[in-house]
Amino acid sequence: MTTWLDLPADSPYGIHNLPYGVFSAPDRPGRRRIGVRIGDFVLDAGAAARALGRPSVLLDADTLNPLMAAGRSTWTEVRAALTGWLSDEAHRPEISRCLVDLADAELHLPFEVADYVDFYASEHHATNLGRIFRPGSEPLTPNWKHLPIGYHGRAGTVVVSDTPIVRPHGQRKAPADALPSFGPTRRLDIEAEVGFVVGTPTALGTRVALADFREHVFGVCLLNDWSARDIQAWEYVPLGPFLGKSFATSVSPWVVPLDALEAARVTPPARDVEPLPYLDDRDGEPWGLDLAIEVSLNGQVISRPPFASMYWTAAQQLAHMTVNGASLRTGDLYASGTVSGPEPETRGALIELTWNGEQPVKLQDGATRTFLEDGDEVTLTATAPGPDGTRIGFGEVTGRIVP
Amino acid sequence: MTTWLDLPADSPYGIHNLPYGVFSAPDRPGRRRIGVRIGDFVLDAGAAARALGRPSVLLDADTLNPLMAAGRSTWTEVRAALTGWLSDEAHRPEISRCLVDLADAELHLPFEVADYVDFYASEHHATNLGRIFRPGSEPLTPNWKHLPIGYHGRAGTVVVSDTPIVRPHGQRKAPADALPSFGPTRRLDIEAEVGFVVGTPTALGTRVALADFREHVFGVCLLNDWSARDIQAWEYVPLGPFLGKSFATSVSPWVVPLDALEAARVTPPARDVEPLPYLDDRDGEPWGLDLAIEVSLNGQVISRPPFASMYWTAAQQLAHMTVNGASLRTGDLYASGTVSGPEPETRGALIELTWNGEQPVKLQDGATRTFLEDGDEVTLTATAPGPDGTRIGFGEVTGRIVP
Repeated sequence: MTTWLDLPADSPYGIHNLPYGVFSAPDRPGRRRIGVRIGDFVLDAGAAARALGRPSVLLDADTLNPLMAAGRSTWTEVRAALTGWLSDEAHRPEISRCLVDLADAELHLPFEVADYVDFYASEHHATNLGRIFRPGSEPLTPNWKHLPIGYHGRAGTVVVSDTPIVRPHGQRKAPADALPSFGPTRRLDIEAEVGFVVGTPTALGTRVALADFREHVFGVCLLNDWSARDIQAWEYVPLGPFLGKSFATSVSPWVVPLDALEAARVTPPARDVEPLPYLDDRDGEPWGLDLAIEVSLNGQVISRPPFASMYWTAAQQLAHMTVNGASLRTGDLYASGTVSGPEPETRGALIELTWNGEQPVKLQDGATRTFLEDGDEVTLTATAPGPDGTRIGFGEVTGRIVP
Repeated sequence: MTTWLDLPADSPYGIHNLPYGVFSAPDRPGRRRIGVRIGDFVLDAGAAARALGRPSVLLDADTLNPLMAAGRSTWTEVRAALTGWLSDEAHRPEISRCLVDLADAELHLPFEVADYVDFYASEHHATNLGRIFRPGSEPLTPNWKHLPIGYHGRAGTVVVSDTPIVRPHGQRKAPADALPSFGPTRRLDIEAEVGFVVGTPTALGTRVALADFREHVFGVCLLNDWSARDIQAWEYVPLGPFLGKSFATSVSPWVVPLDALEAARVTPPARDVEPLPYLDDRDGEPWGLDLAIEVSLNGQVISRPPFASMYWTAAQQLAHMTVNGASLRTGDLYASGTVSGPEPETRGALIELTWNGEQPVKLQDGATRTFLEDGDEVTLTATAPGPDGTRIGFGEVTGRIVP
């Protein structure tokens, strides 16, 4: 399978990827359209369908939600059509007129977020935080290996990559302080995560079994769960994180179809606690994913978190999230939790990389960082194995801190 | 101010209330319309506007969201118009044709929920739970009197009154159990709460000051935050409640306009910790509200929680929720947290009323309850002082437990 476009063989945005996004461009200013990334172009998907005499209400939309709601069989059909348009030389005249230079495109939040849930699925991350915050006691809470711990976040503050991140204010109280004080966070952090986007909804009172994961999840993005550690530490007992997280969550502008990740599937790490049947994926199709993530701070790679090391998979998270009968809506977004591998240089948050600020990260210009300073820019990128030795690229998620 | 309708003088749904809802009725089957409750009638608001030659896109909608988004000055105008239509005898011929018997109306979720946040603002409730779960230690966490503790819940499972509540399954582990088990919750509980509905949105990075509360909050409803205590107890450390809550949250079908509650405003209880300036309402307009709530189980009143006893007000909660720059969307719903007064018979959850199941509630038929059984029906109602000695009624929120 090759495309008639002139792309490098190792392009992470080749014909095997075809991630979906929403863009606008100067040819129709302000008009949001569904785009599919190929190389450094964006295919105007609705225009392409019309050009070939196959107009589609799902592709002529200003968000991905209608396509996402249409379900797995439609996703397969649409992906096959797009693949055909970009590989069949006969379509080149019409389709090439529907390509926009990526540099000319403004990328928008690709879908309307319904509910946003954040998990906590890296054993290394949870263990590191336990060691930092509860030294001397068991780092993992007793429930950790029995269920994928998660909580709801703020859907309304999920923003697309390149949205400036305003340093949040809030209450902070260090253990030595007598009283809390109010002001800008002094411990602004990142969390490198992978996000899963729900397409097919479910009815209240029903569950999604592990085996039905692919019927419901449309695709995958990268996600930076910005965290104000001082605000979070003071507020989170007993009901969990709230304002320490709710000021912003950034997502990548491209949603990689689940179908593009077949070659990336791996067996998750061995579980040392037997899972309850609804979470037991040992006899089925496991959904570990071999994404290689890179975290850059001001252009310098500071960590390489391996997503394959996650203890709980996205399929287990979906099964857990719905086992109580909670319904799914099109646009539900759930994130993996911070991705941290076993080695220090694979940790997905500054609080771990700097061990609670005790071991600053050194930057090439001689500067150091414990937490983020105003003007800092953080970028997450990732690639995964594609078919036939290709690579699948994830659009970067970037945010710059403003005061 | 009186209406030309023949209503008892003490009707809680008189001309001073006029709560908004969304209904359908046999005259236009399946068609959702905005309704305003007056006595035991529903005024078809869009039809009324058209009948008087003042068609309105805000009233001819199938949810309250467009009206809610229009902002305070529009809310005032629309309320004045409705009041005029129902009080001016000259409008009686046209308007009376737009009244539907409440008994013929099906009531729907009145607005699309954007984000849902649940607070924890009753000192009595938080103290009771602290005593039950952490006997021998300080019942309130150190942060409790410095900030209104809250967390995000699941917006997609907010349902309207009369939606059956399916008993959720999940993982439960009592302290004495070696391993968690899976099955239906054995400790299904209620939480009697008051919900605040946001109309006017805000931009990311901005805050809502205490004084701007009424610019953003459209109205008030009753809310039952169903809780599976065994699931919650096992899952909630360290990131807060998740599946123990996310299976369903019931709201009343009528949203009482904030303007109907002026006479219900009271000074909140004295705070024994000085609030930070952004939460300090001592020199402004305090937003304590004197709602008298009743909780009924199978038709029998089991508790009378006084909302005026809440430590944190809805204005403080809104100021806190946005102090980190988190944006508001039209349809954001936030709940007060369980309303419990100081006396045992004013507690708003079974776990408190039965002191963790040790002191069962006695029902008139000789039965007792610690937690809810299948077939049980719970109803919350409330009234508040209205102008000129009237009462403002809140539409009941009811749910029946099904297996």
